[in-house]
Amino acid sequence: MTTQELIDQIKIKKSFLCVGLDVDLNKIPKQLLELEDPIFEFNKAIINATHDLCVSYKPNIAFYEAYGLKGWISLQKTISYINENYPEIFTIADAKRGDIGNTSAMYAKAFFEDLNFDSVTVAPYMGKDSVEPFLAFESKHTIMLALTSNEGAFDFQTLTTNGTRGEAEQSGAKELYKQVLETSKTWENSKNLMYVVGATKAEYFTEIRKIVPDSFLLVPGVGAQGGSLSEVCKHGMNANVGLLINSSRAIIYASNGIDFSEKAREEALKMQQEMEAILN
Amino acid sequence: MTTQELIDQIKIKKSFLCVGLDVDLNKIPKQLLELEDPIFEFNKAIINATHDLCVSYKPNIAFYEAYGLKGWISLQKTISYINENYPEIFTIADAKRGDIGNTSAMYAKAFFEDLNFDSVTVAPYMGKDSVEPFLAFESKHTIMLALTSNEGAFDFQTLTTNGTRGEAEQSGAKELYKQVLETSKTWENSKNLMYVVGATKAEYFTEIRKIVPDSFLLVPGVGAQGGSLSEVCKHGMNANVGLLINSSRAIIYASNGIDFSEKAREEALKMQQEMEAILN
Repeated sequence: MTTQELIDQIKIKKSFLCVGLDVDLNKIPKQLLELEDPIFEFNKAIINATHDLCVSYKPNIAFYEAYGLKGWISLQKTISYINENYPEIFTIADAKRGDIGNTSAMYAKAFFEDLNFDSVTVAPYMGKDSVEPFLAFESKHTIMLALTSNEGAFDFQTLTTNGTRGEAEQSGAKELYKQVLETSKTWENSKNLMYVVGATKAEYFTEIRKIVPDSFLLVPGVGAQGGSLSEVCKHGMNANVGLLINSSRAIIYASNGIDFSEKAREEALKMQQEMEAILN
Repeated sequence: MTTQELIDQIKIKKSFLCVGLDVDLNKIPKQLLELEDPIFEFNKAIINATHDLCVSYKPNIAFYEAYGLKGWISLQKTISYINENYPEIFTIADAKRGDIGNTSAMYAKAFFEDLNFDSVTVAPYMGKDSVEPFLAFESKHTIMLALTSNEGAFDFQTLTTNGTRGEAEQSGAKELYKQVLETSKTWENSKNLMYVVGATKAEYFTEIRKIVPDSFLLVPGVGAQGGSLSEVCKHGMNANVGLLINSSRAIIYASNGIDFSEKAREEALKMQQEMEAILN
């Protein structure tokens, strides 16, 4: 999916909601556990109930790997189900991968070719050659961690750094996440980059938009983690919206009874309506 | 496996070699491709031929995920084969994971419980609460990226940082990888931490040992990536050896003929003999 197609979908649906599929067998309705593939059945019901209210689904890969082979099968079935039934949806493999070049290339193959996701999340710590193998997939998108929504974001991401070479050297002291944003713009195919920026840090969006005015930002942390949608939009939205707001637990676990998909739809609808009001 | 048991194995085998199992179907002997599970058959042959010369195997998870479900099955069979036949081996899931707490907990479950690895590699960018769920497994080990062996290591890891809060604030300016090492020592169960330090940066080991004198360091980059074993040992070894030297391609792809496991053994033996000479 191209960036323009994503923007078009946002305008059509009046929504920039991403639903996170972090499926924990301890949290889904008990009656699903009797089925052959409870995770896939849960996802299918959630997807069928919410696909017109969101523009993106984001399976969190950890929640599938934790169940081993069965989890990987559920993941495969979930992404295939979305691609076959709702090809207009932008799919995100939330994997936070990153390794030396030949290894990142294998992760890119896993998520872009084998599973056929539109995008994957990656970590920046290993630098340029750990991310460029993902960027090499011209028709795909690479979503790099910049400033995350968790408490540990303040351990390293907000440290003040002085560049040590090249571009960085000339650009002076800045926080690590800003350096990550600036450096990444120099990488091959950097137009395919989007960034993760946590909603819990809404006041940072103004600064971030100075560095990456046009890029899409994937924003976790609205809802369960306490971030405010209106604050994020106020500081982070650009002319093409430029935001994908993720909500996982608040939507998919709105109920753990047999009405779980209806309740998930109600929560997604609330989010979509808030977004529509902001877009108008 | 406890750290003491690992140290004992190093002394018994006179080796601190870790063999990386980065299995690429394009590089293994063609005749294996006719078998039902070529990756597992390749690994089994390599393991049987080298287990007395090394103390550790490190499957690189990307190379399994790239083959989807089949790859995950090969990974499961490989780790089970090692655990059943060579329980004295220290196993490393080279996965470079890291996410918010509840997600890291799921990755920890995947690698420590479902697959039963002794250790997993993690990335530090998301900070304390992204690593502590791994450290919570008391009998396991968490190997965190510090200074990696690739070119991109110089993009962010060697930037000079000024601490912004708590301990960091008082400890002054230092390179990011040093800050990562120092900060990680304050985390819950940090005794379970080991660190990835690339062999291509041998001159940095002296500085690193000032911060983490007692920790084990997993060292990639000897061989194919150009690092020197003797240089690494000169600057990085401690009283308990404290090093696991990884070699992947130089050993497992020593030949792509039917003699691949014999040639792998020859290469592993060369490494073990170099290590024995250094240990004496």
